[in-house]
Amino acid sequence: MKNVKLIIEYDGTNFSGWQIQPNARTVQEVIEKSLEKIMKKPVKINGSGRTDAGVHALGQVANFCEKFSIPVEKIPLALNALLPKEISIKNAIEVPKDFHARYNAVGKEYIYKIYNGAIRSPILRNYTYFVPKPLNIEKMKMACDYFVGEHDFKGFMASKSGVVDTIRNIYALQVYKKDEILIIKAIGNGFLYNMVRIIAGTLVDVGIGKIKVEDIPYIIKSGKREKAGHTAPPQGLYLSKVFYQLPIIP
Amino acid sequence: MKNVKLIIEYDGTNFSGWQIQPNARTVQEVIEKSLEKIMKKPVKINGSGRTDAGVHALGQVANFCEKFSIPVEKIPLALNALLPKEISIKNAIEVPKDFHARYNAVGKEYIYKIYNGAIRSPILRNYTYFVPKPLNIEKMKMACDYFVGEHDFKGFMASKSGVVDTIRNIYALQVYKKDEILIIKAIGNGFLYNMVRIIAGTLVDVGIGKIKVEDIPYIIKSGKREKAGHTAPPQGLYLSKVFYQLPIIP
Repeated sequence: MKNVKLIIEYDGTNFSGWQIQPNARTVQEVIEKSLEKIMKKPVKINGSGRTDAGVHALGQVANFCEKFSIPVEKIPLALNALLPKEISIKNAIEVPKDFHARYNAVGKEYIYKIYNGAIRSPILRNYTYFVPKPLNIEKMKMACDYFVGEHDFKGFMASKSGVVDTIRNIYALQVYKKDEILIIKAIGNGFLYNMVRIIAGTLVDVGIGKIKVEDIPYIIKSGKREKAGHTAPPQGLYLSKVFYQLPIIP
Repeated sequence: MKNVKLIIEYDGTNFSGWQIQPNARTVQEVIEKSLEKIMKKPVKINGSGRTDAGVHALGQVANFCEKFSIPVEKIPLALNALLPKEISIKNAIEVPKDFHARYNAVGKEYIYKIYNGAIRSPILRNYTYFVPKPLNIEKMKMACDYFVGEHDFKGFMASKSGVVDTIRNIYALQVYKKDEILIIKAIGNGFLYNMVRIIAGTLVDVGIGKIKVEDIPYIIKSGKREKAGHTAPPQGLYLSKVFYQLPIIP
């Protein structure tokens, strides 16, 4: 019996998210079906967490336990030959028997990409959030600082989520420009449902002047979803890293 | 009667190229249909040139002559509201009556993007050429110099093309890395059918060691398609600029 850790990139555009659900095409299901062909039996994989429809991953992590004879390092090539081009196994390594991609994760890094141009970009449409209004990046950077640290992020969670413990620790939240793209990078011990997208939407609202920088601490403290900004759309979001040791913040 | 110059971006993935043809979805046709809705009559647009299926444009240029009352600067917004998200009109200006997007073009700039990673990238799959073999970029840069200037590029043209005058002037050919992407930039007074893709394929063949740098001048001189490298695939290619005045090479 081997326990295998996979690092996975996917283009979430045409998937109903990561997690298996009836009557929907999901990343987990597509990978499990390909894995079944290699292993000649059904294999269940554990993802580090869900991603929503349209959300991408550069470094999603999953693991599976199975008895098999092919060398672990051959798994990416074997799986990629069967997977659609929207999914790619970037790496596979054998890990200790007790490793679990979700339970052992101690942090995650998300990237959120914004295209802040005057006119929409066809090339970037599925991979960025198009914001045509001018953004005050300095104010967005100032707003970031208020999110860092341990807070109750109840107000930054989709209201339909049933999670009770809403305290999370954000290790780093940065906004920076890379060519024509504005990038928000968020690293934390975990994120609530839609939390990164609501933080991104709130930062955009700060950028366009709809929310004041100095109001951010009160918005967080209020715990009220309606005080925070809008939920930025899924196509700008990328699960970029999952940490199994505490990350060192640059 | 106004003559209007459009600058157009498109994602060529799901188009059978620029030019109208029967039983195929083309960029020109989709724009003409939207324009017809605004102008309440059929409008023919002149593109600066064709692009193949799967090829993208950041700065395709087209013009059309028509009598209409809406301000020219409102055309991008009006057209973009009707166009699919794969096409965007970036700019519209009124130009002199005798301007023609194809006949008046004096040069073009193409960009060719290569993803030179170990494992294929889902996010980049429709926007780059995936080359998993290591590339010697220094050798590719050296090869570029041999292409610059006026040459008979007969050997760098798809064999099915019927063009007789195969002499073209390449003003600049550069290879450089931008993050994880290798970019080939080609500026010239014009390019033969598939010429940029064959130059890109030849440069990749130099990069992987299949073609020697010092053989490039003889390959060009031979005028034989089979001496040059492979035709790089369409999805890495972007028509980035069309010049109506001679460009200044940086």
